[in-house]
Amino acid sequence: MPIVNIQITREGSGPGRDAATAEEKAALIRGVSQLLLDVLGKPLDSTFVVIEEVPLENWGWYGMPVPELRRRRAEET
Amino acid sequence: MPIVNIQITREGSGPGRDAATAEEKAALIRGVSQLLLDVLGKPLDSTFVVIEEVPLENWGWYGMPVPELRRRRAEET
Amino acid sequence: MPIVNIQITREGSGPGRDAATAEEKAALIRGVSQLLLDVLGKPLDSTFVVIEEVPLENWGWYGMPVPELRRRRAEET
Amino acid sequence: MPIVNIQITREGSGPGRDAATAEEKAALIRGVSQLLLDVLGKPLDSTFVVIEEVPLENWGWYGMPVPELRRRRAEET
Amino acid sequence: MPIVNIQITREGSGPGRDAATAEEKAALIRGVSQLLLDVLGKPLDSTFVVIEEVPLENWGWYGMPVPELRRRRAEET
Amino acid sequence: MPIVNIQITREGSGPGRDAATAEEKAALIRGVSQLLLDVLGKPLDSTFVVIEEVPLENWGWYGMPVPELRRRRAEET
Repeated sequence: MPIVNIQITREGSGPGRDAATAEEKAALIRGVSQLLLDVLGKPLDSTFVVIEEVPLENWGWYGMPVPELRRRRAEET
Repeated sequence: MPIVNIQITREGSGPGRDAATAEEKAALIRGVSQLLLDVLGKPLDSTFVVIEEVPLENWGWYGMPVPELRRRRAEET
Repeated sequence: MPIVNIQITREGSGPGRDAATAEEKAALIRGVSQLLLDVLGKPLDSTFVVIEEVPLENWGWYGMPVPELRRRRAEET
Repeated sequence: MPIVNIQITREGSGPGRDAATAEEKAALIRGVSQLLLDVLGKPLDSTFVVIEEVPLENWGWYGMPVPELRRRRAEET
Repeated sequence: MPIVNIQITREGSGPGRDAATAEEKAALIRGVSQLLLDVLGKPLDSTFVVIEEVPLENWGWYGMPVPELRRRRAEET
Repeated sequence: MPIVNIQITREGSGPGRDAATAEEKAALIRGVSQLLLDVLGKPLDSTFVVIEEVPLENWGWYGMPVPELRRRRAEET
């Protein structure tokens, strides 16, 4: 009876989108549930998956919020 | 000093509601804090409760998002 | 389909015990599952409960680990 | 490779604000990442920080939601 | 920059084992990281995975700890 | 009333140690509680900190468990 919590930044995976689509979320849920069945033999009805979408300014890496990190990287290149 | 995290789907418990009401949330907080006092002797001032409401399409069970799971179950009956 | 995560310090609730007993854990699981049924109408088979026991020195309150907090409080009285 | 999850109530730290500002969030991210470098030698590029803002009525302490707790405390004084 | 937290019961997936093996954990990590690359385009170096193994008596489903749930199911069949 | 959850790998920060020391944990708790006071004005008595130590083979980055990641990096240099 696994619980999988997936935290991602709230943003689109392509132009014109500002969040993961329902199809992308369904693919994550299907894929990770299948993985737990394949690797550990956990039946699909015993796996819960929760996706949490985190605003970009609430996510930190390299000691700074992601928007600032991306701005710096863009300037460097 | 317990911490209780309650994740629920964001939906109403009855017609005309689309989320848990403030009264329902208060009942969850009161009930679980009392439970920790009764079972483990934890005083009420040392228990934190956080309720997270998760959009339906972000919650997976049986390898699929909850809206799809409910649609299939409705079709079966 | 709620998920409830309960974090408690790893310690006994009485003399001669150094952790919550299996009976206490069962009472927490039963109580919180029943609470979600009573308040939000969630059936028992759709609620997952996970209890995490945290070593005392890994838990902080008032800016210090719990063992130090208790030592200070004991000295004050 | 630490992961730091910071849960705070969604509210302003001063008049006219109803949430933590981007500057406050950046200060939390910077401060906690630096702390992990100072104390455990974890490089900044290996620390993830996620800030979760929780609505006041979803946060419980003393067996009640925070808005009710504050109302009672205000009445007592 | 996803974070994936996988909670599973601490038990073996076959006879003579009492926990997930290192190979099974590696397969979970590899599979879920690849999934986030495939579905959302997240590079492998930006995904953190944490596996938490929960003792059976700390996991509740159907309002009871998992060992009791399994005992009842075995008796029914 | 913040809750801070810090997940770190279970390993020593120097030779002859195989886990964070009690002093290092106390420094993390003190530092992060002070940070929340400085940045958001949260009083020390309203901040809970929980440190979780994760076995190395349960932590994944770059699509593989940390021990394998380090072995590869050591071979490359």
